[in-house]
Amino acid sequence: MSNPILAELIRGGIVESRHSGAIAVSDPEGRIVLSLGDVTRPVFPRSAVKAFQALPLLESGAADKLDLTDAEIALAVSSHGGEPRHVETAAAMLAKAGRDAGTLECGVHAPSFRPAAWALLRAGEEPCALHNNCSGKHAGFVCLACATDRDPHRYIEATHPVMREVMGAVNEMSGAALTGDGVGIDGCSIPTQAAPLAGVARGFARFGTGAYLGPERAKAAARIRRAAAAEPFLVAGTKRFCTDIMTIFGERVFVKTGAEGVFCAAFPELGYGIALKCDDGGTRAAELMMAGVIAKLLPLSEDETEALKRFLEPVQKNWNGIEVGRLRLAGVLA
Amino acid sequence: MSNPILAELIRGGIVESRHSGAIAVSDPEGRIVLSLGDVTRPVFPRSAVKAFQALPLLESGAADKLDLTDAEIALAVSSHGGEPRHVETAAAMLAKAGRDAGTLECGVHAPSFRPAAWALLRAGEEPCALHNNCSGKHAGFVCLACATDRDPHRYIEATHPVMREVMGAVNEMSGAALTGDGVGIDGCSIPTQAAPLAGVARGFARFGTGAYLGPERAKAAARIRRAAAAEPFLVAGTKRFCTDIMTIFGERVFVKTGAEGVFCAAFPELGYGIALKCDDGGTRAAELMMAGVIAKLLPLSEDETEALKRFLEPVQKNWNGIEVGRLRLAGVLA
Repeated sequence: MSNPILAELIRGGIVESRHSGAIAVSDPEGRIVLSLGDVTRPVFPRSAVKAFQALPLLESGAADKLDLTDAEIALAVSSHGGEPRHVETAAAMLAKAGRDAGTLECGVHAPSFRPAAWALLRAGEEPCALHNNCSGKHAGFVCLACATDRDPHRYIEATHPVMREVMGAVNEMSGAALTGDGVGIDGCSIPTQAAPLAGVARGFARFGTGAYLGPERAKAAARIRRAAAAEPFLVAGTKRFCTDIMTIFGERVFVKTGAEGVFCAAFPELGYGIALKCDDGGTRAAELMMAGVIAKLLPLSEDETEALKRFLEPVQKNWNGIEVGRLRLAGVLA
Repeated sequence: MSNPILAELIRGGIVESRHSGAIAVSDPEGRIVLSLGDVTRPVFPRSAVKAFQALPLLESGAADKLDLTDAEIALAVSSHGGEPRHVETAAAMLAKAGRDAGTLECGVHAPSFRPAAWALLRAGEEPCALHNNCSGKHAGFVCLACATDRDPHRYIEATHPVMREVMGAVNEMSGAALTGDGVGIDGCSIPTQAAPLAGVARGFARFGTGAYLGPERAKAAARIRRAAAAEPFLVAGTKRFCTDIMTIFGERVFVKTGAEGVFCAAFPELGYGIALKCDDGGTRAAELMMAGVIAKLLPLSEDETEALKRFLEPVQKNWNGIEVGRLRLAGVLA
């Protein structure tokens, strides 16, 4: 079965490119409110479930013990641009755990926010693990290990007690695989677990409301949502969809991107969780689909409608700043 | 009608992402040898038809008058990485026309080959129009204008005599639009013309054989093919599909990428032209599809089979160098 086309790139009066995908919107009980495409086959939600992966950090009491701030908790669920504030915050988390960047096992890449990468290079500096877009999540794992008196060494392995807790949380929240097919390795070297979009959406409905969660987990979820709403810059960065959307909507929308075209969200006031994937892995289309879901489902003020516009018809400009194309929603979302 | 899935990304034992697309293989008369998906609807071939756009530079006698080398002609049909040799060659072309980088109207971006961009930044230098991946093509337009005593100013406009000749050549080779819907603006600010994949494939069959072309055009096409085969580095650059494939196959394969998932090729020995597009614009899948077409159609030696392997199952590694996924062909091409 092929998924419906949900986004199109328009150039010179015709459709240049097409993106198909699947979207699940669920309530906390697992009732599907909206379903487009196949929402039952397993999908790797990748970084879009960092909020689930961070639950043990809160539930264990580690975050309180180390006195983690909203900014630090937001960074623990982030895919950040490697901008100076992201790097400093990750370093501060590690310092609270009595560690430094040398304990991170996420690998090294230059800041994904290009001006930050350029500034680094122009200053004659080298990228380090703190610049990795997952350094906040990994700093969270190190905090969890150290605050609970466990050696963080090889915390990225599925057999490490910290990673077992992390994988367990993802499994409980979304029905994700724990072993075998459907468990892969993520860009930052930790296991990534496949789950049906319907399961991930249900998990985010629970994450956004606390329904069907134990009291400690519900409290942890609320704390993460509050932290992300208070510090949306820490969740992504400059000119990033997650940061911009949470800046507009505050606690009304928790939203998180994942590699290969995944996006997840929670709309607490409606009790809905959302999980979507652009089949081809395209972030531009996944962002547009999420903007379309927000526009379709969430009651919007005039200001919010206005603010959402640029995400609903993103303009492509060329190297001379000339508009050359536009993305637009297609099919049911149009 | 939706196009077939032709490429898949595998991670953790399951399919993570899927790419659909269309492929046309034609002979010079327009007989379709292989057709997957819809090859009749208009597609922007983008930079994949730079070889057609360069025909007037050769046919006019401008290239001979300015004594352009193989390297310079190869650069005129390139989408290059902005590496030092690309930049120097573009500058040399402009100097032969009595001009410099100030005449280029392609816009400025940093070298797309990341180590070249980093080296530039570390040296405290700024990117200029010569680093634009289209600077060779634009230098060719400037050479054409100057060698034929026409002012290159605003050569990027559809109404400029040089651009009229360029657009005319693309139209004649592929049936591409000249006005109205199906004419857009490319990343480098010149018009980009949509044509059916079947038409583009037929054009490349003629480009690869000279059949159905006038003697001047056939000579120009042969010159471009020889130049690209002699200087494949100039057509793209380090770690680039076009360069690597033409390095392996020499004059047996002319291949050229275009933005938004387009790939074109000519296999002169078979008399075939190939045009394909990955629906979602993904380059990784377009490259894989082209590798699949080469493997399927071209008689290969053992060495060539071996050399083609890494293009047929490209490995994805993460920031720690761990293999996390593999692309593979799907459907008819598998």
